[in-house]
Amino acid sequence: MPTIDLNADLGEGFGIYRIPAEAAVLPLVSSANIACGAHAGDPVVMRETVARAVAAGVVIGAHPGYPDREGFGRREIGASPEEIAAMVITQIGALAAVCAAHGATLRYVKPHGALYNRAATDQAAARAIAGAVMAVDPSLMLLGLDGSTMLREAEEIGLAVVREAFVDRAYQADGTLLPRGQPGAVLTDPELVAERALRMLQDHHVVAVDGTRRLLRPESLCTHGDGANPAALLQAVRARLAAAGWSIAPFAT
Amino acid sequence: MPTIDLNADLGEGFGIYRIPAEAAVLPLVSSANIACGAHAGDPVVMRETVARAVAAGVVIGAHPGYPDREGFGRREIGASPEEIAAMVITQIGALAAVCAAHGATLRYVKPHGALYNRAATDQAAARAIAGAVMAVDPSLMLLGLDGSTMLREAEEIGLAVVREAFVDRAYQADGTLLPRGQPGAVLTDPELVAERALRMLQDHHVVAVDGTRRLLRPESLCTHGDGANPAALLQAVRARLAAAGWSIAPFAT
Amino acid sequence: MPTIDLNADLGEGFGIYRIPAEAAVLPLVSSANIACGAHAGDPVVMRETVARAVAAGVVIGAHPGYPDREGFGRREIGASPEEIAAMVITQIGALAAVCAAHGATLRYVKPHGALYNRAATDQAAARAIAGAVMAVDPSLMLLGLDGSTMLREAEEIGLAVVREAFVDRAYQADGTLLPRGQPGAVLTDPELVAERALRMLQDHHVVAVDGTRRLLRPESLCTHGDGANPAALLQAVRARLAAAGWSIAPFAT
Amino acid sequence: MPTIDLNADLGEGFGIYRIPAEAAVLPLVSSANIACGAHAGDPVVMRETVARAVAAGVVIGAHPGYPDREGFGRREIGASPEEIAAMVITQIGALAAVCAAHGATLRYVKPHGALYNRAATDQAAARAIAGAVMAVDPSLMLLGLDGSTMLREAEEIGLAVVREAFVDRAYQADGTLLPRGQPGAVLTDPELVAERALRMLQDHHVVAVDGTRRLLRPESLCTHGDGANPAALLQAVRARLAAAGWSIAPFAT
Repeated sequence: MPTIDLNADLGEGFGIYRIPAEAAVLPLVSSANIACGAHAGDPVVMRETVARAVAAGVVIGAHPGYPDREGFGRREIGASPEEIAAMVITQIGALAAVCAAHGATLRYVKPHGALYNRAATDQAAARAIAGAVMAVDPSLMLLGLDGSTMLREAEEIGLAVVREAFVDRAYQADGTLLPRGQPGAVLTDPELVAERALRMLQDHHVVAVDGTRRLLRPESLCTHGDGANPAALLQAVRARLAAAGWSIAPFAT
Repeated sequence: MPTIDLNADLGEGFGIYRIPAEAAVLPLVSSANIACGAHAGDPVVMRETVARAVAAGVVIGAHPGYPDREGFGRREIGASPEEIAAMVITQIGALAAVCAAHGATLRYVKPHGALYNRAATDQAAARAIAGAVMAVDPSLMLLGLDGSTMLREAEEIGLAVVREAFVDRAYQADGTLLPRGQPGAVLTDPELVAERALRMLQDHHVVAVDGTRRLLRPESLCTHGDGANPAALLQAVRARLAAAGWSIAPFAT
Repeated sequence: MPTIDLNADLGEGFGIYRIPAEAAVLPLVSSANIACGAHAGDPVVMRETVARAVAAGVVIGAHPGYPDREGFGRREIGASPEEIAAMVITQIGALAAVCAAHGATLRYVKPHGALYNRAATDQAAARAIAGAVMAVDPSLMLLGLDGSTMLREAEEIGLAVVREAFVDRAYQADGTLLPRGQPGAVLTDPELVAERALRMLQDHHVVAVDGTRRLLRPESLCTHGDGANPAALLQAVRARLAAAGWSIAPFAT
Repeated sequence: MPTIDLNADLGEGFGIYRIPAEAAVLPLVSSANIACGAHAGDPVVMRETVARAVAAGVVIGAHPGYPDREGFGRREIGASPEEIAAMVITQIGALAAVCAAHGATLRYVKPHGALYNRAATDQAAARAIAGAVMAVDPSLMLLGLDGSTMLREAEEIGLAVVREAFVDRAYQADGTLLPRGQPGAVLTDPELVAERALRMLQDHHVVAVDGTRRLLRPESLCTHGDGANPAALLQAVRARLAAAGWSIAPFAT
């Protein structure tokens, strides 16, 4: 029986601001990308989220992002490669310590938002991220966009990589995501998203916004926790995949 | 030949704001309390400071503080014990990751400013800090005020503690520091400070502001990096101690 | 027909974090205390909220708070009177400019959370706030707790004051609010809150948690926007007051 | 006797971090661009700086910047025009309130760093800034780069503009500044800078880095407060201009 990982961004509340949907999303994924207190999350939220992930048996990854709470890490802030490396190191460390305090082990890293998008094509940013992960802990895996410069740079220095595809985001012909804010960038129909997920796994492609097919061989599928009903979307994906004979399992065991 | 550790707060710049005196202070201490990006420091400053400490052969400690840059961690922000534990965990982790990235090992933790002062007498805060250090890494030592509630709580849970005395701060009769802002709270005369350091080591006491003697058996002496000429102060202390037969060596080897 | 003002805290979102209930609350009050970008709010949220208040014909007040987003301005951060004065001045100015940009006029100031509570009894803080309001614009009114030190200090320097009572918060015998976090501090039953509102207006008292009666002559009633259903609570209050012959009108016209 | 304005950025400290050179710079300029608490400055620093400007008889302008302390407002953070308008409005308001509290009047606005550079050529950003200034107070002047899109957009909506040139920054052929970080971007030789200032005023041009001449008719000359000895640089400029018969006077009276 083939297996696939499901990942989602979690722990993205801050202070009194919490994301109510997260409680329902967490048990539906196999890997949790947990915010590290920069673009989102704070020390208390990080602990709560790690504790929940541990309780749910979900594998934990660090989700470092630009230190821009007001823009939720979605604005390209023009950080230098040196600044990127430093922020990735400290954010990984912060979450790794929370994991240690809860008897868990941090297994992977997935950059967030504008940092993720930049590293998909910007070699200096990609190198900064891959080098930072390697420097902190060479046993960490790097989760990123299939076909991205970031994963290529990571492989070049010997870091284990995991390829993901986004089941609820529109793709451009070059394999990058259609930027948020553009019409149709985020898909919200659970059945459509579920069908898309299955196509990615079985047909190894996604149809880009210009109609071309983009080849994909994802080892993990990402859904977003910030839609109207992210749990419903995940449930639809799980049901469709189960019906097609796929089981959900983390890439890191 | 007896030995004593000298420690100072370092890495307390932020963005374009740097503390020029730090470069001269670092090689004069044996242990560096490095800010973790909350009350001061940022990822780039943390890396620079750790790199310098490694180059100088100085032992590295984490210096977590309240996330209050505007008040430099010197205002009591009324954080709950749960919030204190979480911030100590994440700040230790951030600096530990920087150490790992530079081939160094984080050896100890010393809280900063208002957090340090609160934990000197507040049992809930003291427990939160000690428990946080233990939870992240039980091999870390906790550096704190001789006679403080924080060290007592740490010892109770089996954490290794190191007692320090402040050579350039006035003491109150109960062994706590005279708060900054009160006249005479910070001593700046190098010769007076050096003499005071020697008295602490050889006579095992400090004269409090009310004239009473407070017994001390410090394993480390702290000087501050934020005075007018912190390096001159450290040089005076080192000269006086050397003349009396003391050598400087870190408590953690 | 007697009139009474209803006020609530608004504009307390930040970045992607929004308070969905606010849209329903705004048209139900006559005065909106709008966060100024320190404890909550950001420039975009401030503009959106002021625009909505203008559209709803609701009077606008500035709601300055401690610059502690993580604690939502509810932690006493130990700011000095000088720091308090400066933060109140700049926060008022920020919101006044937003009002000007939307053709509205800022009419009053009501401090938030821990700053509000501190100024209820701390004379130095109370003076700092009142002096700051007066210095920026002597035509601004200060909305505060009936019987508080803050209003006394404001009156002493000739600032117009407005007395408020909290319909959904428990009182202590001395007229201050039972701190959040203590059981029963926040009342959520709409009918009970509505009855309490009417008692405040008609019987001029509130029953404190120890059973004693506290005299009140509120010119404004405050409800909170952060409960489970703040609009339902406001609707219940409005219905009860209307049935008893009260109409809702702002204190500033 | 011809007159020219000299302006410099001031009030760019934060918390314990202060810019010692500012005290010497302030009395040497006729117009002070005061940071508004976003890229730099905080409420206490803003008050101190305004008080000093008032005492020195220096005209006060608001110096709004991106809310990116870590990057000192020098990184392009990708804010939307809507976000830019909102941040400019609130930052102007914050400083205007400080001015009011000190009996002074805010006279102009000059954006900072990356925001300034972006608005030199980006029409949407330029419009957002000009519109924000106009919306808050149409009597404010906008100080900006001679030949910039920002000033063109401001004139189009009827805002009074003031053209400035940078005496200590290298120019590119298109009239924009050579970005910081590139070799030769910041000029530090006082005599060379002073000569350059005189050439701008008398010959109405500056020699760009490619050797071409760029026409300029500045109404204000800007020097930076963050060089090694900004006061010496200003003194050299003042001496050279005085010797050539120019007197220093603010553009706004």
